[in-house]
Amino acid sequence: MFKEVLENVSKKRPLIHNITNYVTVNDCANIILAAKGSPIMADEEKEVVDITSICDGLNINIGTLNSRTINSMLLAGKQANKLNHPVVLDVVGVGASTLRNNTAIKLINEINFSVIKGNISEIKALATKSNNTKGVDASDDDIINNNNLDDIICLVKEFAYRMKSIIVVSGPIDIVSDGKDTYCIYNGHEMMSSITGTGCQLAALITTLISANKDNILLATVSAVCMMGYAGEIAYQRLNKLDGNISYRNYIIDAIYKMDSNMLCLGAKHELR
Amino acid sequence: MFKEVLENVSKKRPLIHNITNYVTVNDCANIILAAKGSPIMADEEKEVVDITSICDGLNINIGTLNSRTINSMLLAGKQANKLNHPVVLDVVGVGASTLRNNTAIKLINEINFSVIKGNISEIKALATKSNNTKGVDASDDDIINNNNLDDIICLVKEFAYRMKSIIVVSGPIDIVSDGKDTYCIYNGHEMMSSITGTGCQLAALITTLISANKDNILLATVSAVCMMGYAGEIAYQRLNKLDGNISYRNYIIDAIYKMDSNMLCLGAKHELR
Amino acid sequence: MFKEVLENVSKKRPLIHNITNYVTVNDCANIILAAKGSPIMADEEKEVVDITSICDGLNINIGTLNSRTINSMLLAGKQANKLNHPVVLDVVGVGASTLRNNTAIKLINEINFSVIKGNISEIKALATKSNNTKGVDASDDDIINNNNLDDIICLVKEFAYRMKSIIVVSGPIDIVSDGKDTYCIYNGHEMMSSITGTGCQLAALITTLISANKDNILLATVSAVCMMGYAGEIAYQRLNKLDGNISYRNYIIDAIYKMDSNMLCLGAKHELR
Repeated sequence: MFKEVLENVSKKRPLIHNITNYVTVNDCANIILAAKGSPIMADEEKEVVDITSICDGLNINIGTLNSRTINSMLLAGKQANKLNHPVVLDVVGVGASTLRNNTAIKLINEINFSVIKGNISEIKALATKSNNTKGVDASDDDIINNNNLDDIICLVKEFAYRMKSIIVVSGPIDIVSDGKDTYCIYNGHEMMSSITGTGCQLAALITTLISANKDNILLATVSAVCMMGYAGEIAYQRLNKLDGNISYRNYIIDAIYKMDSNMLCLGAKHELR
Repeated sequence: MFKEVLENVSKKRPLIHNITNYVTVNDCANIILAAKGSPIMADEEKEVVDITSICDGLNINIGTLNSRTINSMLLAGKQANKLNHPVVLDVVGVGASTLRNNTAIKLINEINFSVIKGNISEIKALATKSNNTKGVDASDDDIINNNNLDDIICLVKEFAYRMKSIIVVSGPIDIVSDGKDTYCIYNGHEMMSSITGTGCQLAALITTLISANKDNILLATVSAVCMMGYAGEIAYQRLNKLDGNISYRNYIIDAIYKMDSNMLCLGAKHELR
Repeated sequence: MFKEVLENVSKKRPLIHNITNYVTVNDCANIILAAKGSPIMADEEKEVVDITSICDGLNINIGTLNSRTINSMLLAGKQANKLNHPVVLDVVGVGASTLRNNTAIKLINEINFSVIKGNISEIKALATKSNNTKGVDASDDDIINNNNLDDIICLVKEFAYRMKSIIVVSGPIDIVSDGKDTYCIYNGHEMMSSITGTGCQLAALITTLISANKDNILLATVSAVCMMGYAGEIAYQRLNKLDGNISYRNYIIDAIYKMDSNMLCLGAKHELR
């Protein structure tokens, strides 16, 4: 499956419109380029409809949302829906403020998302209106492990079914479900949580892969999740004894740049549950 | 020529006011420092007149323009004109939205720019009101090659003459014209298009070099274009087999930091047409 | 002292709310993570009270302040005061515009800051209403050296006493005073001024360390200043002959990630005056 998914990206070089946070925006642009897509960042409400119209997919990330950009997200999302472009939502920090909660709910009510992504605390906050977030990181007692895995899969699958979207939960074990099929992905490395933006980068990568694979969005999403996690493993192996988290960040994006479908086939650890 | 241009930068350490996009702003600040200038980023309309007044040059980049910053660009540009500071405009994404088109036209109508920079699709969009942009990248059928070079030189030269500005077109062959003299620069590497922001960095570098060489703006611009392209070549040679686009980005800025006029003399490939 | 300070950070993993500039925001997030804290960036006035309430400390940086974010700084700062969270102010570019001067004064009048940080030109501008800044860098005639050191210590100590805050002046010799005890820190390397954001990163690091050491804020601040400077020394030693300022930036954050209290004990050069 990886071969076709990645070949389509290289062939189509999808143009991805990003309305994203200013913390990790450079990493997101570079990971889209690393994956052979083409990024454009634009969040002014007077131009987002124009911009998203010339693109192939839209990536919305609420990491540093503000009054000005929330409306841009809505306008761009609706236009992307009208044009049948894939739209991804990364619900960064949902649970941490009323504004984020209300914005996320407004977005999922008014826009059809192909994929909604978050860590387990964020997805729980959205799916169950609970509130156990620790800023932008998952709470310790939410972390996915073998004991709570079945329960979390149930929650994710049910939420995906209800939302008619693919739900991606990132964590030590990643979960991807479209409400029917659910995948567990075992790639990744714990050091990925020591850098900012691996989650944002994953959302950008998912948007890139699904925008070039509109007929196969679930497998393209699984491919992106495997690819990101496997890049985290390759990057970890590359660390020398002086390298810390910034070198690790760089090596991850480098690994995406270098990754082809053969490497990904060998490295991907995914399981259909 | 490079010797005097670079010596003036080291001696004067020009302070550069940047109103730029939030995607590549960190790279722009660091490349200005690498070139021995000093950057300040400020885009609030209540302070841009103050800020630009203490600076030596102004770099305006519309990559992530918004309602708030467009007015700041106009205010800063007019103040810089009043003080006779060099002003550079990077027309990122012109052609991609009506807002960008209108803003670029408003800016060039109300401000005298020392240099206007874009890729070939952007400069064509501005010079001929055509519209063939692919987001922030040049369209494939616009790419400069030996077949269309003469035509593009004509267009650029005529536009420069009409605008009374130096026009810089970045691409596989870079073109710099003041409407009288036109230079082709053959430095650079195709991998530069696999990272975000080499264009933004070039505009920041041009601003730095011309702000310390106000009597010799054309040659300072040519120097900056050669320097950026040659840094791309040096950085490419430095890549090891695991390095991808982020390492390449880092190596380019490192190469600017390390470059002196002797190196640049040996590496620069420019031609007066 | 370093042992306890750093252990507390690792144990508590403080969540740090940052309202900061968009130039160096990624570096600030990554240095907080490198120091085993957890960053969240949020600057929308409708959510900053919520966000700061779930955090352990607040870092305010006026580097790219604007009309929208100034009010957010005030709201967050007051809420953090109410909850007795440590609050740090980095007065980037004070002296460069009336807006920055007025904003800094408004902030220090309305919020109790645990720590106020700047370079010598910025702190002088704030303490004496003088105006000798060169953008975001210290003016050459302000630079701390052995001749003017005693005078500057007096100024800083008096200002700290008056403000009831710890004052941090970054420079070739760093000064930290709470109005009673004053420390000089001799760590660091001059190449740190060739990258953007070492000052912003220091403020983020100070916030991280004091938020996990609320009973020992002065020593936690001194620890952060030593740590940042020593990381600059380690990073410098790591440079190879092709490395420039971006690699240096990366190595500094890497060095923070790798630093433990034993290393810091051996490397820190501080003196109680």
